[in-house]
Amino acid sequence: MSMVCLSDFEAYAKKYLPKIAWDYFAAGADDCTTRDENILAYKRIHFRPRMLRDVSMMDIRTKILGSEISFPVGIAPTGFHQLAWPDGEKSTARAARAMDICYIASTYSTCSLEEISMAAPGGLRWFQLYIHRNRAASQQLVRRAEALGFQALVLTVDLPYTGKRRDDVRNGFRLPPHMKVKNLEGAFEVCKMSLLDPSVTWNDVYWLQSLTRLPIIIKGILTGEDAALAVKHGVQGIIVSNHGGRQLDEGPATIDALVEVVEAVRGRVEVYVDGGIRKGSDVLKALALGAKCVFIGRPALWGLAYKGEEGLQDVLRILQDEFRLSMALAG
Amino acid sequence: MSMVCLSDFEAYAKKYLPKIAWDYFAAGADDCTTRDENILAYKRIHFRPRMLRDVSMMDIRTKILGSEISFPVGIAPTGFHQLAWPDGEKSTARAARAMDICYIASTYSTCSLEEISMAAPGGLRWFQLYIHRNRAASQQLVRRAEALGFQALVLTVDLPYTGKRRDDVRNGFRLPPHMKVKNLEGAFEVCKMSLLDPSVTWNDVYWLQSLTRLPIIIKGILTGEDAALAVKHGVQGIIVSNHGGRQLDEGPATIDALVEVVEAVRGRVEVYVDGGIRKGSDVLKALALGAKCVFIGRPALWGLAYKGEEGLQDVLRILQDEFRLSMALAG
Amino acid sequence: MSMVCLSDFEAYAKKYLPKIAWDYFAAGADDCTTRDENILAYKRIHFRPRMLRDVSMMDIRTKILGSEISFPVGIAPTGFHQLAWPDGEKSTARAARAMDICYIASTYSTCSLEEISMAAPGGLRWFQLYIHRNRAASQQLVRRAEALGFQALVLTVDLPYTGKRRDDVRNGFRLPPHMKVKNLEGAFEVCKMSLLDPSVTWNDVYWLQSLTRLPIIIKGILTGEDAALAVKHGVQGIIVSNHGGRQLDEGPATIDALVEVVEAVRGRVEVYVDGGIRKGSDVLKALALGAKCVFIGRPALWGLAYKGEEGLQDVLRILQDEFRLSMALAG
Amino acid sequence: MSMVCLSDFEAYAKKYLPKIAWDYFAAGADDCTTRDENILAYKRIHFRPRMLRDVSMMDIRTKILGSEISFPVGIAPTGFHQLAWPDGEKSTARAARAMDICYIASTYSTCSLEEISMAAPGGLRWFQLYIHRNRAASQQLVRRAEALGFQALVLTVDLPYTGKRRDDVRNGFRLPPHMKVKNLEGAFEVCKMSLLDPSVTWNDVYWLQSLTRLPIIIKGILTGEDAALAVKHGVQGIIVSNHGGRQLDEGPATIDALVEVVEAVRGRVEVYVDGGIRKGSDVLKALALGAKCVFIGRPALWGLAYKGEEGLQDVLRILQDEFRLSMALAG
Repeated sequence: MSMVCLSDFEAYAKKYLPKIAWDYFAAGADDCTTRDENILAYKRIHFRPRMLRDVSMMDIRTKILGSEISFPVGIAPTGFHQLAWPDGEKSTARAARAMDICYIASTYSTCSLEEISMAAPGGLRWFQLYIHRNRAASQQLVRRAEALGFQALVLTVDLPYTGKRRDDVRNGFRLPPHMKVKNLEGAFEVCKMSLLDPSVTWNDVYWLQSLTRLPIIIKGILTGEDAALAVKHGVQGIIVSNHGGRQLDEGPATIDALVEVVEAVRGRVEVYVDGGIRKGSDVLKALALGAKCVFIGRPALWGLAYKGEEGLQDVLRILQDEFRLSMALAG
Repeated sequence: MSMVCLSDFEAYAKKYLPKIAWDYFAAGADDCTTRDENILAYKRIHFRPRMLRDVSMMDIRTKILGSEISFPVGIAPTGFHQLAWPDGEKSTARAARAMDICYIASTYSTCSLEEISMAAPGGLRWFQLYIHRNRAASQQLVRRAEALGFQALVLTVDLPYTGKRRDDVRNGFRLPPHMKVKNLEGAFEVCKMSLLDPSVTWNDVYWLQSLTRLPIIIKGILTGEDAALAVKHGVQGIIVSNHGGRQLDEGPATIDALVEVVEAVRGRVEVYVDGGIRKGSDVLKALALGAKCVFIGRPALWGLAYKGEEGLQDVLRILQDEFRLSMALAG
Repeated sequence: MSMVCLSDFEAYAKKYLPKIAWDYFAAGADDCTTRDENILAYKRIHFRPRMLRDVSMMDIRTKILGSEISFPVGIAPTGFHQLAWPDGEKSTARAARAMDICYIASTYSTCSLEEISMAAPGGLRWFQLYIHRNRAASQQLVRRAEALGFQALVLTVDLPYTGKRRDDVRNGFRLPPHMKVKNLEGAFEVCKMSLLDPSVTWNDVYWLQSLTRLPIIIKGILTGEDAALAVKHGVQGIIVSNHGGRQLDEGPATIDALVEVVEAVRGRVEVYVDGGIRKGSDVLKALALGAKCVFIGRPALWGLAYKGEEGLQDVLRILQDEFRLSMALAG
Repeated sequence: MSMVCLSDFEAYAKKYLPKIAWDYFAAGADDCTTRDENILAYKRIHFRPRMLRDVSMMDIRTKILGSEISFPVGIAPTGFHQLAWPDGEKSTARAARAMDICYIASTYSTCSLEEISMAAPGGLRWFQLYIHRNRAASQQLVRRAEALGFQALVLTVDLPYTGKRRDDVRNGFRLPPHMKVKNLEGAFEVCKMSLLDPSVTWNDVYWLQSLTRLPIIIKGILTGEDAALAVKHGVQGIIVSNHGGRQLDEGPATIDALVEVVEAVRGRVEVYVDGGIRKGSDVLKALALGAKCVFIGRPALWGLAYKGEEGLQDVLRILQDEFRLSMALAG
């Protein structure tokens, strides 16, 4: 099996992962319309390629929140990487560092923040968190992330309750007994999303700011109105995201939402996007529409499922090569 | 078989109902374009989800014509429930009462109004009727509904003649001998739609008003012009409906027609809609576009086919949970 | 097999006709895009149904060029009816007379004009013709049609050369030896379209007028510009037609072209349309868009293939019932 | 197997060519969206057919850069014709001369320019070239083309790097050992696209002009902006092309890009188009939108694969017949 493009990794993962794990990663809310729209929307955007420009040297390095990365792609926060590969998030961290990109570690990791940090010291990492009913738990996570050198906090705001993913309900999805949501051990019981606080509002962003000196990025914004509110509340970045189509079905594709968010933000904070990136040319489209960087979710998991950190590096390298080639061909 | 969403009940009903009953419930007119458009039109409507709003408490109770219901979904009038479940409309009535919602009993029920009332005393019920050639028959039905505590009359206006449902013609559909249209027994022969009066006009609404003190709701309106006429003729409510796509094919989807009806009515009477509701988010869309409540037709029959009143309650509970979740996720 | 709608007859014909005959009747030019668009375009047109109008009495009789017909559907000119049924055009003529509608007999009939006339004396018939290189032949056909009581001439103008119908080329389509294009016997050899004159222009309409006192109808107009020219040249009617999608592929669907033709004609002559009529509601749509009558081509052949004149009457009766029902349901 | 239209040749080639050769010819970049859009875009363009015009005589001869050709179709430059037929480009040259049209020989031919010239002396030929890192090599090719009587140079500008064609990567595509890129033998090693210079800019057009007295045509333009630049830099013609969808995926279809190029050029140089031509009516559409001539790529290879020069002539003759018929039927 030769791995030529990201969908080759998808096919591999679908074939070799346990069904319950594949279903969990693949799941979208309800009819999966938004999950699929994330991809289809990219196809509706066309290039106007320009010719005879000198494309012999192309610098694809960029900076996000001041940190340099090798190209404008990072790893979006997704949970439970041990479902894809035994070493779980430790492999993810190593691959991200090897490729010199940013990895956003999820609260719902199967390795602890400490393990992730130890696995790849010096890598650029952000930490994704929710606001829990038990605020002390959130506060403790912030402290740990700061102490371990995570360079930003990514607050996910689209999950007051978990979306309805039919296959997960059918499968009775839960983590196998030998895996744990290690970040939350002790603090509260595992895998109960109801521990998240659905009463959270914009004021809680101020509370989070009061806890930390780290920059705060809001993940899950889909409208210009909310983007303006995010800027007003002093965040440092916005990730346009619909949680991979796993929360509210039949909202906008992220690449479509990006346009109105970028317009509302008017350059005051950095804007990123996740969801639907499957080719290097998708990255180029997102950047052309105003994103500073994109983040990949499922493709990273497929890479892990293929060969752990090596597989994830394969995925990233393909994306990097495709991105560079697209830039050259688009002039 | 785990019942996770309404289409699971559809699949069950298709598998276990006698073909002739399934075909009758599923039938649409001609090419079934409008039946299918009812569903597709919902998919073309997208949310603009807002974040960081306090969604810890959500009140989904509402009122229709002054009566409180547990959430804005009711049972649309459909005929012949015994084709789906032995207890027929008695089970429907019990499930509706248990869920604290409104059930619109059809003239073409296989249980009589009296049986329906006895089965679930105290439930909120409306009675659906046609105007018959034999006006005395219509009058007698109105009297009985009034006497039994039905709280509104729903006049169906889109059936001067029965639509052409090809499968019913092919199957030679008729009720099995042990089932009867009990409401019409004695008054006239069963299952002859030609007993309905195709010469009915808006003036007959005045006639109906002269017979009763109950509020009158017009079911089957699809244009702003007709909605304005309905208001002008003093009705208390409008159900935007195309009879589940069973009458004129290639008219508008009901959710599309709702928009112009709401605009024409300008809040003067309550507007409801049926047709194509398959998920809680469809309910939310209909409400966002101005409906006060939606009514489900075929999904109620699938619930009955699954497990009688329990099955119908399952359907309603799923819809209620999905509706609540959609509200939370849409902010 | 129960025959409920026109596509049932299509399925029958496809199953029981010899492949070469089916292919000939079904053929469209090139990729058959226009043939299929004729049907799809009807589906894109939606009704706005109105309610509570007295539809107890509906008069569907109408007049074309002053002759009354039982409903606004006629038989379009198609060739070689013996390929569908042994009695060929004689059966067609009998069915049309029995249904009290207009039959446009094709030059390329397998029965002669005389046989057609004898088969159904007194029926309303028009004669379709081309202008041949050998003008005397055209003149002779006009004389015969006049003498036999045909009430109009239908001049087909979209066939300077025969369209490329791939299956006919593959099949090496030609009439079986026992069938003849009887109208042209003696005058010229059969089945050579090259006998038609590709140099024909609008001036030849004047020539045709000089030969006859019969009204002249132009068949094959697809633009407002040509419709205006037709009126200017003094024709009595226009059939909007793309020859069933058998000539130039990727032109407009006839129901779409009808709109601009009707606009250009401004009521000065009658406008008809053929192509894509498969349901009674299609007839209603065409009339709503300004056609005085529609003509069916392939569905008539399917009816013949099913049971000769009886089968064709079945097709017409279904269309009539559906048309009446659509009118009632649309208000 | 009867060869009635170009897709018959496609089916033949797919069936009988070695998979690796078929894949190479069929390949599109990435998801092949643009390759397929080239064809689909033609289908979205509709004719407005006019009737009753004298179409008995039609002159389809035309001139490109002053040379007369029998109809406005030529052979686009494609590589490696020996993969399709043993005699390779020699057969192509013979077929083009026999049909009296223009053949653009590719730098990546498996026959040398000299062999091509010898095979069909006197034929109208242009030579396609790239600008190589080793400019002397480019210069030598220009000299040879001039000396052999090629009448124009076609500079391909959309290949600073080779597009990502997944199947070629999977197949490890390379020429079989007995085939050579003869034009480049000696000058540099074969099949290394990296020998092309990605730093080429519009200034290099001036350099090319300084080498030759031949007219220069730019191939690969897709925007009005670049078309204006091409005119400004003194070229004699533009081929609107996306390299058959083999370079940047998800750019415009060529027939769509043609419109803006023609508008920008305002008649100052000749504009041609390739990509997606599959029927004579496609040629007519391209001409109606302003192209002076179209060029076919893959269909020529299918013709070669079928029967060498005879097969290619079959393809061209079908296209010629279809083009003439379309003109007649469109009026």
